Amino acid sequence: MISYETSFPVRYYECDPMGIVHHSNYIRYFEICRDQMIADWGYGMEKCAADGLVFPVVSVNVKFRHSLYVGDTARVVASIQDLPLAKLTVHEVVYNQNGDVCAEGDVVLGFMNSETGRIMGCPPKFLEVLKTGEK
Amino acid sequence: MISYETSFPVRYYECDPMGIVHHSNYIRYFEICRDQMIADWGYGMEKCAADGLVFPVVSVNVKFRHSLYVGDTARVVASIQDLPLAKLTVHEVVYNQNGDVCAEGDVVLGFMNSETGRIMGCPPKFLEVLKTGEK
Amino acid sequence: MISYETSFPVRYYECDPMGIVHHSNYIRYFEICRDQMIADWGYGMEKCAADGLVFPVVSVNVKFRHSLYVGDTARVVASIQDLPLAKLTVHEVVYNQNGDVCAEGDVVLGFMNSETGRIMGCPPKFLEVLKTGEK
Amino acid sequence: MISYETSFPVRYYECDPMGIVHHSNYIRYFEICRDQMIADWGYGMEKCAADGLVFPVVSVNVKFRHSLYVGDTARVVASIQDLPLAKLTVHEVVYNQNGDVCAEGDVVLGFMNSETGRIMGCPPKFLEVLKTGEK
Repeated sequence: MISYETSFPVRYYECDPMGIVHHSNYIRYFEICRDQMIADWGYGMEKCAADGLVFPVVSVNVKFRHSLYVGDTARVVASIQDLPLAKLTVHEVVYNQNGDVCAEGDVVLGFMNSETGRIMGCPPKFLEVLKTGEK
Repeated sequence: MISYETSFPVRYYECDPMGIVHHSNYIRYFEICRDQMIADWGYGMEKCAADGLVFPVVSVNVKFRHSLYVGDTARVVASIQDLPLAKLTVHEVVYNQNGDVCAEGDVVLGFMNSETGRIMGCPPKFLEVLKTGEK
Repeated sequence: MISYETSFPVRYYECDPMGIVHHSNYIRYFEICRDQMIADWGYGMEKCAADGLVFPVVSVNVKFRHSLYVGDTARVVASIQDLPLAKLTVHEVVYNQNGDVCAEGDVVLGFMNSETGRIMGCPPKFLEVLKTGEK
Repeated sequence: MISYETSFPVRYYECDPMGIVHHSNYIRYFEICRDQMIADWGYGMEKCAADGLVFPVVSVNVKFRHSLYVGDTARVVASIQDLPLAKLTVHEVVYNQNGDVCAEGDVVLGFMNSETGRIMGCPPKFLEVLKTGEK
């Protein structure tokens, strides 16, 4: 299984009139963790772009369990159970500083050729990169 | 069935480096439509607040089908199939100006007493309000 | 003088834990109004892109006078006093539904060739477009 | 002089169709740095709230000098030249990882009693806190 983790403080402007992180922002937290994971594999945005590879988001589902407040620190864990064929499923969990699960869900990504706009299977090169992330 | 619809132009800052509406923003479009629907029933935020009622988002799932671009107009339709007992499920669809489905999903809302923070069943008063929206 | 006006409801997620529109969002409201103004002249993003013209924001200043709340409607007025030579200054004011000035400021835009990345003077074509907006 | 610095990676969703950080986000970067500075003095949001003190933003001005791109790291430096009487001016600069100035400006904050909504002078307690930040 591949797993990656990152932490950052909640930002004031991400919180809504209830004083909690607006639910839409968890989707953004998910992306931050995924992007850092991919960059950590040595395969950041620039390389993807050079290879003409983009990852369209196919679907997202999230369950909201606990609120994050101004002053809290978010810890996001992304994990990948199965190497992808046509689509990559990333499971993501956001915790607060006390270890409470605040939100969790799955993000499904496709693989697209950025020049033709065509959906394709997982490129062998990316599969190799993914395997380097495996522990 | 209850149904409500609203339209607005895509905003430039909502679009990402691929030139398309960032996927997290569809969650926000969903909320805009729900909030306008509830306000349209004459039961806006102020009344909810006065009644000590808030709607925590319990879960969201979205399927992304087609991109929205700078210059496009989003049309969002929210619909409610079943009157809620403990939770309210709102089905939401975002279309572009050509009628293509760009994103669709379900948002599940709970009912919470804003003073105690307690989750509760759907208050009878809100059920009445919901019924006024029914066609 | 050129002047353009647009209105829209405040969105819930734009409001912060004080229950008011976060100050950064006024900068976005300014942009919404400018973009609609330019599109209204028949010179939208696609035409700018086709002409290789982009408008980098050079500077922004804003004075915050009054808060916008959840449930309020924002009315934004953009006006242009002087036809541009090297830079275009747009004066922008955000009002609430009662006519109170909530924020006002100036946005200074440059003209850039999107292919070369070079800053240039105001293209004659854009000057013509601007004049069509004049009343 | 008081000075504080923080760094973080640019987030993908903060970038616009030109592939650069949208200008409105620099205002948010400014706030992130200020909030961390105040928290670093041991006077975070919770304490401010307990003391009934909020800092309304009175004005912001920003000059945009250089773009931040996807993959860049932002470094924000906030500095305070003069201890405040009625208003606090924070000078803020955003650099990229190469030390280029991307944006700089001044944010002017007032002092408000959160219960009465009244603007007041700088509370002696906050002045003491500010002095602990001084080097």
